[in-house]
Amino acid sequence: MWGHQSAARLPDAYPQFFSRGEGCRLWDADGREYIDFMCAWGPMVLGYRDADVEAAVDAQRQRGNGLNGPTERLVELAELMVETVPHADWAMFQKNGTDATTACAMIAREATAKRKLLLATGAYHGAVPWCNPYPNGATAEDRAHVIRYEYNDDASLERAAAEAGNDLAGIFVSAFKHDLGKTHQRPNQSFAAAARNICDKTGAALIVDDVRAGFRLHMGGSWELVGVRPDLSAWSKAIANGYALGAVTGNEKFREAAGRIFVTGSFWCGAVSMAAALASIRKMKDIGAVDMMQRMGQRLRDGIAAQARSHGVALQQSGPVQMPVILFENDDDRRKGWLFCTEALKRGIYLHATHTMFLSAAHTAADIDRTLEATDAALAEVARQFA
Amino acid sequence: MWGHQSAARLPDAYPQFFSRGEGCRLWDADGREYIDFMCAWGPMVLGYRDADVEAAVDAQRQRGNGLNGPTERLVELAELMVETVPHADWAMFQKNGTDATTACAMIAREATAKRKLLLATGAYHGAVPWCNPYPNGATAEDRAHVIRYEYNDDASLERAAAEAGNDLAGIFVSAFKHDLGKTHQRPNQSFAAAARNICDKTGAALIVDDVRAGFRLHMGGSWELVGVRPDLSAWSKAIANGYALGAVTGNEKFREAAGRIFVTGSFWCGAVSMAAALASIRKMKDIGAVDMMQRMGQRLRDGIAAQARSHGVALQQSGPVQMPVILFENDDDRRKGWLFCTEALKRGIYLHATHTMFLSAAHTAADIDRTLEATDAALAEVARQFA
Repeated sequence: MWGHQSAARLPDAYPQFFSRGEGCRLWDADGREYIDFMCAWGPMVLGYRDADVEAAVDAQRQRGNGLNGPTERLVELAELMVETVPHADWAMFQKNGTDATTACAMIAREATAKRKLLLATGAYHGAVPWCNPYPNGATAEDRAHVIRYEYNDDASLERAAAEAGNDLAGIFVSAFKHDLGKTHQRPNQSFAAAARNICDKTGAALIVDDVRAGFRLHMGGSWELVGVRPDLSAWSKAIANGYALGAVTGNEKFREAAGRIFVTGSFWCGAVSMAAALASIRKMKDIGAVDMMQRMGQRLRDGIAAQARSHGVALQQSGPVQMPVILFENDDDRRKGWLFCTEALKRGIYLHATHTMFLSAAHTAADIDRTLEATDAALAEVARQFA
Repeated sequence: MWGHQSAARLPDAYPQFFSRGEGCRLWDADGREYIDFMCAWGPMVLGYRDADVEAAVDAQRQRGNGLNGPTERLVELAELMVETVPHADWAMFQKNGTDATTACAMIAREATAKRKLLLATGAYHGAVPWCNPYPNGATAEDRAHVIRYEYNDDASLERAAAEAGNDLAGIFVSAFKHDLGKTHQRPNQSFAAAARNICDKTGAALIVDDVRAGFRLHMGGSWELVGVRPDLSAWSKAIANGYALGAVTGNEKFREAAGRIFVTGSFWCGAVSMAAALASIRKMKDIGAVDMMQRMGQRLRDGIAAQARSHGVALQQSGPVQMPVILFENDDDRRKGWLFCTEALKRGIYLHATHTMFLSAAHTAADIDRTLEATDAALAEVARQFA
């Protein structure tokens, strides 16, 4: 098994294979049931097998999926993205987050005729050589024009931009700092303003990588929360409630360059995923899915904070409440973190000790309360073993 | 519209949007019906909305698609690929052809700790900077370690390998030479043997890019036809009858390296596409889909050849009969080719003048005969206008 879904990266108790999902619950290949806080690593945002999304999928499947060109769903979805996302004057669609971030890099370089891309140290933007967090199978040249800066550090960003000089094509920023195993941080106002300002001065593209966070923090794009609008955004995970889709949105300034690059894939025009996205985005707006996830995320955070105090366990919860990470104090080897998660797993709750977790609109107060019963027992075990 | 599905690259008569597919027929957004010889640019191989594939999709959708890890479908599909493809000792799955070719490049470099990749001039291996046929949005460094050779030219391949010296990671070969607008050529025996021999001597990976041709020429991989087995193969289009999937198969020599690279995508473990692939590959074997496509492709080729002679139009049909390209003599500006296709289009037949076309197992003798009525009229018009 490869990539982020390899259970070899997880404690032994974690299952590698799954058999079924329904709402916020999933079942492993041995039939064990879990309340899921990974949500298929993000894509599941309304619940597994959401009835409205599946109905749209059924309807589209009666007509067709991949044909010799797109269906009208593509136009409808591009219009919906432009209507929903304030910075967007156009949209194009792919299959994965990496497709979307790579297309953003190409558009930025094509538009500016410059080469340097600024990426934050430790930020994840995909799993191909130009941005892969692991060097295996890549060459030095794949990253020849990547310059690193520290997220939320204006001075470091300014230094990176100065190093790029007049060869700056774009600045990639994660929706928020969500590096693996690190405290999650929202972008601070001065950092966001500095990024926007450098791009305005140089003509470089400000690119928000909203693959992980898109449609979970704000329907208009995550940086609406700091009031800064990007030139380009990359979207994927939560766009179609689990159906394979990526998207790039952009403003007028980058429209022509987006039309000049050659990017494509055999399945990029598949209408079923687009029908799923239309149904999913409309439903998220209708039911106020972001608010729902925030309320349940806050309930979980408050509950765990109280339990941690009561057990005398020092931990830190960070990230937006609907995309949390829980890190234990003095736990560099993650023994506390994985003990906590394993104890929760035994009690039917699927958590992760180092990666961003995800709430969905299918998590109810009863699900959170059931979860808190398990985390209370898990924290008791952490307290006992690390007393 | 971007990429290969942009109708801006086609004559005005060609529709941009489609509404429906069924068997070998598709309908554009204005309701016009066509017998389709592009097959969604390859993926449709058993017919749009094939009942058996759709039943497998229905069954899987009742259980789930993307979960926190793969379902048992992944194991079943890997086993089926290994059983079906003689060179394969293992398989891994992605979403697009470009994902698969890029993973092959990474595996070759990781396994050999070398960098140079040999690619044939004009060969298409995907739409990202390291292999994109168009330079827009790429930097020179993206191709720093790519060396070109001429397909089917042993001496040119030997020269390219010599240029790589002791830094040769892999040789990419298309299943056959299917460059846009060029005569298609099967790999000749001495070229195939030379490629295998260089890799055996140097330890480099012989990589067959079977994205376009895979499962249309031979169920065991296209190079079974020349009796040469690759180390790695990239698969995508025809693997799941239109559902989004890519695959890499490899032999034991490259297994460990494949496990050491980090490649992943949010939707790569989606079980619905894998269920579709299982049903599609099994059905293709059961019904002898390759033979069916060959018989219908031969019927089409013979018919058009006879018509061309009778109209006194000089044309060349090349490529395997089930993946043909039809090029007219003295037609550098493609006016004859696109006139032919446009006249056929008016008569309900969807052809392409420069790209590989595709037969499917859903094309019947009656469909081919109906097509030949249209091509006869279209060739008459070519003869009339270019007399």
